[in-house]
Amino acid sequence: MLLPAAGAPARRRGPALQEALREAVRSGRLTAGTRLPSSRELAADLGVSRGLVTETYEQLTAEGYLRSDRGSGTWVSGAARSAARGARDHAPRAAGFLVDFSPGTPDLSLFPRAAWGAAQRSVLARLPHPSLGYPDPRGLPELREALAGMLARRRGVVADPERLVVCSGVAQAVTMLGFVLRDRGVRTVGVEDPGSPEHGRLFASAGVETRWLPLDEEGLLPGPLAASGVGAVVVTPSHQFPSGISWSAERRSALLEWARETDGYVLEDDYDGDFRYDRAPVGALQGLDPERVAYAGTVSKSLAPGLRLGWMLVPDTLLAELVERKRTMDLGNPVLDQAVLAELVTRGGYDRQLRRCQRAYRERRDALLAALDAYLPGTRVTGIAAGLHVIARVPAVFGPRERFLARAADAGVALRTLEDYGTERPADGDIRLVVGYAHLAPSALARGVRLLAEAVRGG
Amino acid sequence: MLLPAAGAPARRRGPALQEALREAVRSGRLTAGTRLPSSRELAADLGVSRGLVTETYEQLTAEGYLRSDRGSGTWVSGAARSAARGARDHAPRAAGFLVDFSPGTPDLSLFPRAAWGAAQRSVLARLPHPSLGYPDPRGLPELREALAGMLARRRGVVADPERLVVCSGVAQAVTMLGFVLRDRGVRTVGVEDPGSPEHGRLFASAGVETRWLPLDEEGLLPGPLAASGVGAVVVTPSHQFPSGISWSAERRSALLEWARETDGYVLEDDYDGDFRYDRAPVGALQGLDPERVAYAGTVSKSLAPGLRLGWMLVPDTLLAELVERKRTMDLGNPVLDQAVLAELVTRGGYDRQLRRCQRAYRERRDALLAALDAYLPGTRVTGIAAGLHVIARVPAVFGPRERFLARAADAGVALRTLEDYGTERPADGDIRLVVGYAHLAPSALARGVRLLAEAVRGG
Repeated sequence: MLLPAAGAPARRRGPALQEALREAVRSGRLTAGTRLPSSRELAADLGVSRGLVTETYEQLTAEGYLRSDRGSGTWVSGAARSAARGARDHAPRAAGFLVDFSPGTPDLSLFPRAAWGAAQRSVLARLPHPSLGYPDPRGLPELREALAGMLARRRGVVADPERLVVCSGVAQAVTMLGFVLRDRGVRTVGVEDPGSPEHGRLFASAGVETRWLPLDEEGLLPGPLAASGVGAVVVTPSHQFPSGISWSAERRSALLEWARETDGYVLEDDYDGDFRYDRAPVGALQGLDPERVAYAGTVSKSLAPGLRLGWMLVPDTLLAELVERKRTMDLGNPVLDQAVLAELVTRGGYDRQLRRCQRAYRERRDALLAALDAYLPGTRVTGIAAGLHVIARVPAVFGPRERFLARAADAGVALRTLEDYGTERPADGDIRLVVGYAHLAPSALARGVRLLAEAVRGG
Repeated sequence: MLLPAAGAPARRRGPALQEALREAVRSGRLTAGTRLPSSRELAADLGVSRGLVTETYEQLTAEGYLRSDRGSGTWVSGAARSAARGARDHAPRAAGFLVDFSPGTPDLSLFPRAAWGAAQRSVLARLPHPSLGYPDPRGLPELREALAGMLARRRGVVADPERLVVCSGVAQAVTMLGFVLRDRGVRTVGVEDPGSPEHGRLFASAGVETRWLPLDEEGLLPGPLAASGVGAVVVTPSHQFPSGISWSAERRSALLEWARETDGYVLEDDYDGDFRYDRAPVGALQGLDPERVAYAGTVSKSLAPGLRLGWMLVPDTLLAELVERKRTMDLGNPVLDQAVLAELVTRGGYDRQLRRCQRAYRERRDALLAALDAYLPGTRVTGIAAGLHVIARVPAVFGPRERFLARAADAGVALRTLEDYGTERPADGDIRLVVGYAHLAPSALARGVRLLAEAVRGG
């Protein structure tokens, strides 16, 4: 083994000996079961004090590189190398496709690594020590203030920082609200049909059932909602997922009226409310009745889903229960990431990032529309004014649906259809694709649509 | 307002105009309700194209700084400044004390800001884009591998990275396991008496009751455990919280036997297992029976509680349910922090940090013992071999207990006693303090004990 030179200064010899031994065990040069010389022998060999060797053996025993049996000596432990089996990656990604049109993921290459790193450095330099302790379960005060200001101006919400709860994204917001509602006796929550099946799984984890409620091109139909008996509903009024519609003012009012009359609650899932291309964003529903609407948002589309960072604005009547639920789930979000986001929002970096994404995604949407027009003529596209996906209604002539999807899959094109997101089964034979485009470069979009068109047109 | 010079290059004039307007609204120089000139007028005034002004107005309307009423012009919005109310800090800290001896917090000034920042830079430079997407709910594979290796050598656990679940700390581990056990029909879980009352609150949030099970100086008493009918127990065998004992080998075996015979589970809360001062750490219980023992650990004591980062090793039979529970709670931990910790563990920085803390905390423990000996003679101290707190049994002569505590509080000394952590009420009149020392510098420890002694001895 490599050992520190006998001439090295005494205060450096201890750490150097420790590191040399560690490295020898890690690399396998000292194999498990090897007996080490006694501390007296090694000290004499190296010309160091016996105490230094004893301390080294003790430290490496504490770290698990060595083990010692009293009286019989010190050995190289097998534990350091026993956990050799590799970890598999279980992240939810579609594998084995040439082009993946599944909606829901932004372009991860747009994550502002330099800006995030700079903000992180600034945070590490300025954050006071006590802020590294057990956090405020509602979220870091400076982030709650920054987000409240940003959401008030961008989304038109009523944003009191004391009612804002930082959470790990919309999924956690749904689960937490599910628990709070269940504790209040709510057994069933309504979800939009079509909508995100994930909402149902999250509510189920909280012991709450979900019921599909039918949607038309203006929003939830008031009649079925009133007849459903649900205690709350989850809606995506700014850019409905997946249909892409924006709720009409009348349906917004009708929903809030239902909530007030039945003592019901609304969860507004504003998953992509910031991305609107052809006019200013529609203000959030929460701004119309903050006592009936809980509002949830996330950085998953604007920065990266891997950050697991989002926020919730909570009606006063539910606030204490929701904060306690957040506390028992994880004691609050990690503070460094919160401080970094606060820095980005306060200094304008977050608005810059949204502009950058908005430009990129509008260009991609236009590339997708052009490709569909060129390769799958007759396709009608809706829900194009906002968000990261569109509905592409491919004429029945390219079908039938099952053959269309099978051929796409064979050609390596991953697709989702409206049927994956609800109960509706239209009989007209058209194929209603839910096409995510934000994560694909314009050239990849064109290539993907051409590949798809060639596959479905072939014999 | 400050406006961009007419001579600036055209491609810079748009962003500059936007930023000048934003700053004017943010600073209040343009007050809410102010009507802006028409795009035609402003374009003429500035000598820029009308399109540039229109685009600027649209962008700032999207961001909420302006609002526009079709036909009647563009106004400064009030929304940007409406969320002015400040956010309060609800972090769980004892306020208003001169010295706080409450246990549970490490020295936050020891957080290795430079090493964390360097690892963060390295991660931002190397992490592939797809890793920023929705994460593996079990945790980043590279972190699971790094932790499995580290825990195997340091704590003697059986650590398969596929059975390791990264979570946000021991609190989340307890809550998740509570849900999994409740889904399997477990209604009551045993906890150590004395023990952490927080375990009871966390299990309650999952719908599971807890029952105190008596402890002696060797561990849980087998008789009451067998008679209790609980489906699982939570234990702290390496350094029992708060008594400070280390469980005997016999009691470890008896607990595992109970688990095998009753089909019960054990949660080993290894909250401070890495800090042991006078000999190598006791190996984790999980190493003896990984199919009956779930093991939970955290960086809260070694790095900072604010990171909300920990891990769990899960028996194979519970793994799928636990991972799904993690998924519905938050979809997985934030990936950047995970990658940073992986970097620190793999490159030796985490072991270095533990050595650094260990040295600091041993010195503080010794300072506390010396101060107690000097100022409160006759005090017997136990649980000193490990961890971040001790039990100090102050002789009855300084009491009675109520007066002792009242005087301490009056003098600005925050204290916890054994009675805060269980049902035991010893009748001997001695005052059993649970003294946290890791977060206090040696001088603060001496000052705090002197302050306490002066307060309780007075009149």
